[in-house]
Amino acid sequence: MIKRLGVLTSGGDAPGMNAAIRAVVLMANAHNIDVVGFRHGFNGLFEDDCQTLLPQHVQHIIQHGGTLLKSARCKALQLPGGPAQAADALHRHQLDALVIIGGDGSFRGALAIAEHYRGQIIGVPGTIDNDVDGTDYTIGFATAIDTALDAIDKIRDTADAFERIFLVELMGRHSGYIALSAGIAAGAEQIICPEFVQLTADNLKTVLSPIRHAQLLRGKSSYIMVVAENSYPGGTTALAQALSDELGVECRACILGHIQRGGSPVGADRILATKLGAFAVEQLVAGAHLMMAGELNQQAVLYPLDKTGDRA
Amino acid sequence: MIKRLGVLTSGGDAPGMNAAIRAVVLMANAHNIDVVGFRHGFNGLFEDDCQTLLPQHVQHIIQHGGTLLKSARCKALQLPGGPAQAADALHRHQLDALVIIGGDGSFRGALAIAEHYRGQIIGVPGTIDNDVDGTDYTIGFATAIDTALDAIDKIRDTADAFERIFLVELMGRHSGYIALSAGIAAGAEQIICPEFVQLTADNLKTVLSPIRHAQLLRGKSSYIMVVAENSYPGGTTALAQALSDELGVECRACILGHIQRGGSPVGADRILATKLGAFAVEQLVAGAHLMMAGELNQQAVLYPLDKTGDRA
Amino acid sequence: MIKRLGVLTSGGDAPGMNAAIRAVVLMANAHNIDVVGFRHGFNGLFEDDCQTLLPQHVQHIIQHGGTLLKSARCKALQLPGGPAQAADALHRHQLDALVIIGGDGSFRGALAIAEHYRGQIIGVPGTIDNDVDGTDYTIGFATAIDTALDAIDKIRDTADAFERIFLVELMGRHSGYIALSAGIAAGAEQIICPEFVQLTADNLKTVLSPIRHAQLLRGKSSYIMVVAENSYPGGTTALAQALSDELGVECRACILGHIQRGGSPVGADRILATKLGAFAVEQLVAGAHLMMAGELNQQAVLYPLDKTGDRA
Amino acid sequence: MIKRLGVLTSGGDAPGMNAAIRAVVLMANAHNIDVVGFRHGFNGLFEDDCQTLLPQHVQHIIQHGGTLLKSARCKALQLPGGPAQAADALHRHQLDALVIIGGDGSFRGALAIAEHYRGQIIGVPGTIDNDVDGTDYTIGFATAIDTALDAIDKIRDTADAFERIFLVELMGRHSGYIALSAGIAAGAEQIICPEFVQLTADNLKTVLSPIRHAQLLRGKSSYIMVVAENSYPGGTTALAQALSDELGVECRACILGHIQRGGSPVGADRILATKLGAFAVEQLVAGAHLMMAGELNQQAVLYPLDKTGDRA
Repeated sequence: MIKRLGVLTSGGDAPGMNAAIRAVVLMANAHNIDVVGFRHGFNGLFEDDCQTLLPQHVQHIIQHGGTLLKSARCKALQLPGGPAQAADALHRHQLDALVIIGGDGSFRGALAIAEHYRGQIIGVPGTIDNDVDGTDYTIGFATAIDTALDAIDKIRDTADAFERIFLVELMGRHSGYIALSAGIAAGAEQIICPEFVQLTADNLKTVLSPIRHAQLLRGKSSYIMVVAENSYPGGTTALAQALSDELGVECRACILGHIQRGGSPVGADRILATKLGAFAVEQLVAGAHLMMAGELNQQAVLYPLDKTGDRA
Repeated sequence: MIKRLGVLTSGGDAPGMNAAIRAVVLMANAHNIDVVGFRHGFNGLFEDDCQTLLPQHVQHIIQHGGTLLKSARCKALQLPGGPAQAADALHRHQLDALVIIGGDGSFRGALAIAEHYRGQIIGVPGTIDNDVDGTDYTIGFATAIDTALDAIDKIRDTADAFERIFLVELMGRHSGYIALSAGIAAGAEQIICPEFVQLTADNLKTVLSPIRHAQLLRGKSSYIMVVAENSYPGGTTALAQALSDELGVECRACILGHIQRGGSPVGADRILATKLGAFAVEQLVAGAHLMMAGELNQQAVLYPLDKTGDRA
Repeated sequence: MIKRLGVLTSGGDAPGMNAAIRAVVLMANAHNIDVVGFRHGFNGLFEDDCQTLLPQHVQHIIQHGGTLLKSARCKALQLPGGPAQAADALHRHQLDALVIIGGDGSFRGALAIAEHYRGQIIGVPGTIDNDVDGTDYTIGFATAIDTALDAIDKIRDTADAFERIFLVELMGRHSGYIALSAGIAAGAEQIICPEFVQLTADNLKTVLSPIRHAQLLRGKSSYIMVVAENSYPGGTTALAQALSDELGVECRACILGHIQRGGSPVGADRILATKLGAFAVEQLVAGAHLMMAGELNQQAVLYPLDKTGDRA
Repeated sequence: MIKRLGVLTSGGDAPGMNAAIRAVVLMANAHNIDVVGFRHGFNGLFEDDCQTLLPQHVQHIIQHGGTLLKSARCKALQLPGGPAQAADALHRHQLDALVIIGGDGSFRGALAIAEHYRGQIIGVPGTIDNDVDGTDYTIGFATAIDTALDAIDKIRDTADAFERIFLVELMGRHSGYIALSAGIAAGAEQIICPEFVQLTADNLKTVLSPIRHAQLLRGKSSYIMVVAENSYPGGTTALAQALSDELGVECRACILGHIQRGGSPVGADRILATKLGAFAVEQLVAGAHLMMAGELNQQAVLYPLDKTGDRA
């Protein structure tokens, strides 16, 4: 029986992490379970940086970006003996279970701790990149798309006003989910994802032909390319330069960057986070261990934590 | 074989209708099909108010709210002989098919026309109310939720600053989808939908008890109720007055109204509209008739137009 | 010499009040002055509801709507003996000065307290209504306009799509500043302010003629009227009904309401609040008393608190 | 007497340019003056790319970013004989006056044309950079600040969640107006403008000391620096690298870029554009020539076009 559980946010932060923390705390409270929040991801276990989380601590945070527990990557967990030390901290705090809100990298860290930990472990997928198996969407993905769209719509204004080719680089680590979705939704003239083609300076033809075709067809007009990060050696700025050289037209890179991680979560992310945070606690109570709480076809489901590794 | 098709937007307008029109035009163009857009819903058929739609007409409209074809309800279609007259107009324009972007009321109009029309008819679900069977989401619903959230978050600021009870009325005609989703996502203290309970002045107890409970528990604090329209006789303003009288605390109604129909569509609506608009044309080409293009479990599907009537 | 000062937010809350509190605390800190914040406006004085405010308490609040000190109207201050009691509280807390962030109603309360208080009093104009003499703009006004515009732009989308006349009611108590500014910025077809004309059911001609003129000129098209609250007996809903009856066209009222008080302050309000909050403390140190810190022609200025009464 | 006037938008586009075009057209219409809009800045004169602008063409554009006339820099005007050729085009179109909406670079172009042109010339300051003499604010500046704030607030979320130092680069060409205003309004921990200090790799001390001071004082916490473009040799990315090396903490550059030029104009810009566009036409009618329509202390004023050169 679970009397106390720990919760932490780990890895790159994502809009909706606060909503997930809130759901964990409220559902735990409904089950008379105490909650301890660790700060700065797994570092909180090593540095004993934690706080009791009561319902009033999570009141009116559902709409806030960031995470009140802070997030971080954790070097200490990578060191030999790190996982055992983290498990000790969990035992010392008499925690019967741990909820990790993060991406698959954080879940791998959780699995390492699980080898030394007597309690239950469950994951909640929180990352803007949507690169976690076992869930249709990760918490933060929908917001990241709308943040990107807001930026691309603004660039469209200026691109329309002042004819240029813009390359807008979006996040996603090694996956093109954000770029593909935002590109379609923005009506981008071209979308470049690592999944489609591995670009090099020597094979720009697939990129150049549609631009030239559009120039013939439409004459002077705005042209926006949405580019997933890590799509070109040297980055999107180098790609813009290469295209400028080939086309004789100014091509300008716009790297959207960390703006995509912030901001008030959109409704879809708040609802997903609320659903999965609550479901995770319910499933812990029902005995779940080494699972991730995901959503498939709009149903909350459990998925083995060791199979959440990057979608391939 | 389809050489020319008509398209119109009908009923209450919804963010993403432009994106759907764009998708219809671009996909039709890819199939060498000419497109005629009728303005002001079915009225365009009666008043011969229409325009040829080429790809350049739908360039850079994906991000715009409203509908370039205008929308409207149509009295002429309700009159005896109306549907036959509408079908004549379609024949006169030599249209092999008609795409209706709207809600189930508009689909009923389409079915009436179909009795006199020799061409194919397909529907695309465009309404903020999400009250159409055969699709998980309608075009405009996701945007309406985020518009509502934006407003409720602002009211939370002022409710927190200045202690009052706020009743925020959201749209939905006779369904509580928007209210329920926005209420959960806003962390509303209470949600009132027609599906839950039929309120009257005499049975306010279910509404009053949780308010009194919260007052005991939290003392002075903001309290926001999200109320679906048509949940109380006399409307939300009357409900606020009734609660004020019972509680002796100022309860204030905020009727969000038509703001929810406008605004740039969020990514989810742009993608859904693009997907369904394109799918509708593809399915017309494949022979579909009297169907609606919907999305179930993330798959585009066909659903009989005569079964889309309000979810019950 | 000032060693401790009190600060409170009073009356209707306004975006930027947090930024003003932050500026007061940071500038006081730079002068080695302790700060006590009273909660719920003047009520905090009567109920001894207060907290020490250190720089870390105001970190990263500049972007947040609402006010961390809460705001409220205060009945206790209106009672006989109220002002003396409030002054006693200030003496008991050993406060050498008090900063009131609010509108002219709050300033009148401050003047009443001043008759019994040995310390200095300074006002900072915080209200969305912009109805304070001695400053070009009040804190919150710029944000309220942009919030209104966001709503009106959305209504324009739907008004364009679906032909109707919309009457959008904006706040302002008895002044039309918000309505006039938002109306111009929205390109509203008509603006109704109490300053222009006192409307009654019998003299609607000035309102009706331009509508009829536009109908003749432009045919079917959207028509948006921005209406300041308190412009028509019975309110904007009654005005919409009266116009519907006269015109035979659906006229629909949209009451924007308290949304206008919330939301993250725009840059102009954050800068104004920062400037005036800091200036207020500097002027207290320099000996100012019974003054308001305002801004005229972009210069921070002092203005007698007893002359800030509603602009006439 | 003016019977026909030309209007164009030139240089980097700015939110509010559409509102200025609208005001020019509406005021000209009120004076029975015909308006011809040239596209792509001065290029429209050389390429005879123009259109008649009637009131219906500028209906409902006040809220749109970009410029319907497009903007551009113009090489042809720089060539020998270019200004005379441009003047010929104006004569050929029988234009009695020309309104240029742009920055001081565009005004220099206008002055060159004026040497060959028999009509009147007036400028309207439209640029996000606010670097034009003779006006307190340029059209687009207020929107650019709020766009920057929206981004910085999002970065604050993630910076708070994930401890890092962020350097946010804002536009401004050679002036720090945007950076200074946005930095203050964002509560940035440090603001770097070219006006303050000329940074080099050898004199980073002024930048490093406050960071180290904050680290001592506050421990782990977010730290955001707002950096005007052109503040460091090699750019903000190079500066971030230099700071990372010195501090041993990850410093990350975020180049906001062209997003700042787009988006729906905020109220302040729409009102300024409306005021100055209308004033410009009124002053042309009154005989103004070689002047800019600016705003000083909230009054519309004329300022000699040849003195608008970059504020120094």
